[in-house]
Amino acid sequence: MKKFINQLDDVLVESLSGFAKAHADLVSLSLAPHFLSRKEAARNKVVLISGGGSGHETLHAGYIGYGMLDAACPGHAFTSPTPDQMLAAAEAIATDKGVLFIVKNYAGDVMNFEMAAEMLSVENATVYTSDDCAVINSTYTEGRRGVAGTVIVEKCVGSLAETGASLAQCQALGDKVNQHTSSIGVALTSCTVPAAGRPTFVIGEDEIEMGVGIHGEPGRRRARMQEADAIVKDCVAAILADWQQKKLSLPDKHETLLLINGFGATPLMELYLLYHSAAKQLQQQGIRITRSLVGNYTTALDMAGASISLCLLDDEIKQHWDSPVHTAALRWGC
Amino acid sequence: MKKFINQLDDVLVESLSGFAKAHADLVSLSLAPHFLSRKEAARNKVVLISGGGSGHETLHAGYIGYGMLDAACPGHAFTSPTPDQMLAAAEAIATDKGVLFIVKNYAGDVMNFEMAAEMLSVENATVYTSDDCAVINSTYTEGRRGVAGTVIVEKCVGSLAETGASLAQCQALGDKVNQHTSSIGVALTSCTVPAAGRPTFVIGEDEIEMGVGIHGEPGRRRARMQEADAIVKDCVAAILADWQQKKLSLPDKHETLLLINGFGATPLMELYLLYHSAAKQLQQQGIRITRSLVGNYTTALDMAGASISLCLLDDEIKQHWDSPVHTAALRWGC
Repeated sequence: MKKFINQLDDVLVESLSGFAKAHADLVSLSLAPHFLSRKEAARNKVVLISGGGSGHETLHAGYIGYGMLDAACPGHAFTSPTPDQMLAAAEAIATDKGVLFIVKNYAGDVMNFEMAAEMLSVENATVYTSDDCAVINSTYTEGRRGVAGTVIVEKCVGSLAETGASLAQCQALGDKVNQHTSSIGVALTSCTVPAAGRPTFVIGEDEIEMGVGIHGEPGRRRARMQEADAIVKDCVAAILADWQQKKLSLPDKHETLLLINGFGATPLMELYLLYHSAAKQLQQQGIRITRSLVGNYTTALDMAGASISLCLLDDEIKQHWDSPVHTAALRWGC
Repeated sequence: MKKFINQLDDVLVESLSGFAKAHADLVSLSLAPHFLSRKEAARNKVVLISGGGSGHETLHAGYIGYGMLDAACPGHAFTSPTPDQMLAAAEAIATDKGVLFIVKNYAGDVMNFEMAAEMLSVENATVYTSDDCAVINSTYTEGRRGVAGTVIVEKCVGSLAETGASLAQCQALGDKVNQHTSSIGVALTSCTVPAAGRPTFVIGEDEIEMGVGIHGEPGRRRARMQEADAIVKDCVAAILADWQQKKLSLPDKHETLLLINGFGATPLMELYLLYHSAAKQLQQQGIRITRSLVGNYTTALDMAGASISLCLLDDEIKQHWDSPVHTAALRWGC
């Protein structure tokens, strides 16, 4: 394992310290316990707190700031944060309007966020993201996994919260965006967790993992390496089948957001090639793409691979996607 | 080699098509010959055109837009664009104020941009970037290489050009920013050019290449893998020695921009850890860091590694770094 680290025990704190220093205009770092929050705490709005294992950057700390999250609680690489982190973050920044947790549906995260929610005296609710349509139940989940679609949920709910909307309204929008979004990923290589020191899984020179999770957990099947168009074809079919199962209706003038997300070690050149392929194939199936995002937004450390997410926009979701945002990883209109 | 591609011959066009489609609000793509330019051509300003081999994304196409480039000419992966591309781009968008080419100092790029400049009937000038202080002369260069500091040059000159400044003023600022910026990179792994199909160079499990170029060309030395702090120490020493050699004077209240640039396959977690280490060590040496950028801004396809760039800001450079920019890869104030 070759990584830019010092002592294993210090990886998280040193990385968070770098993030906090590089984005000192946006965030503050608390170290006991670890959480990052907006430099200036927001008032009179529902407070949005997310978090999860590290190694998925720019998720979640990259989304702290105006129009998105109020705080993020990072665990060690691929390890859930502990309840005291969420509790401390919530107690530090809660408002009278309540706290909304946004949690990717992974068993460890769900358990620890639930414990924090129970201990928290402030009114709170939770949105669980489960956009990954690759598998139901998985190595670390009951039900579907929450993956890159979480970024879209955080963006839209973050926008709504800034308007002074209620906790119930924020939760409802989060659930809707999650329901409107389907994702599926494919791995070309494994990732390596620093503390493990070796690749998470073994994969052959001519193999890919279709439907991989963002920690390298198995997906639908091990397949032979194929051309990009063939891989995308499988992904698009999975997403559209999921939309059918969810009974999402597509009006003639529907609009969608297409997110091509890199897992960390895939060059942008390839991500844009995937975008080209996915956009072409979706359009052939009658899907209108009117918003796009391409880059490393929900990664799996140094995994080569990518995921495709498609979100059906309605007027409300579109408005909140387009609204101003100022975070380390997403910024427009500010 | 496992990559998200279809036919080798189609990689560039498919990737550019994806980029142009995903950023259709910002750029237009011309295919014969290949160049990307602003959706709406600017008027009454010096036109800025850059380019180079593909595989360094988000350089250069990611920097087309208000406050930065007017056009970018992409070659195949790690291959210079040909003069007809620069000539076509310049002829398509030139204004009376002239054309400024921004060229990384690599022999192929220099030759082809020079040929285009000679053929172009419009007044033009060229800024050559050479921020890499690792080596003088290299596999593909006479003199120093132009690397991630090019982003800072393009940002600042792009800002000045929007004010209606003259060709000579834009060229002078570009030369100054280049002179004020030193960079050095380190590779943990090789990259793989699609057309080659195998790693560009061989590197042992316990080795790193200190001072690597952005195509994997050799740097100062092959070293043993070390802790991040030790690697950064070497890089910081190289940069500060270069500043001394350049006779850059540091007033008490000086300010600097610290750029930690990923080469493509290094997780953000590690880039922020490097930022933490570099900022700490620079501060110990009396350097004041007041601007920061961390991410994949000048990559080397799927190479694991990173570079450190430090730019000495004066009032003029700072003003043009801070000014509004709206491109695919850098956006603020718009």
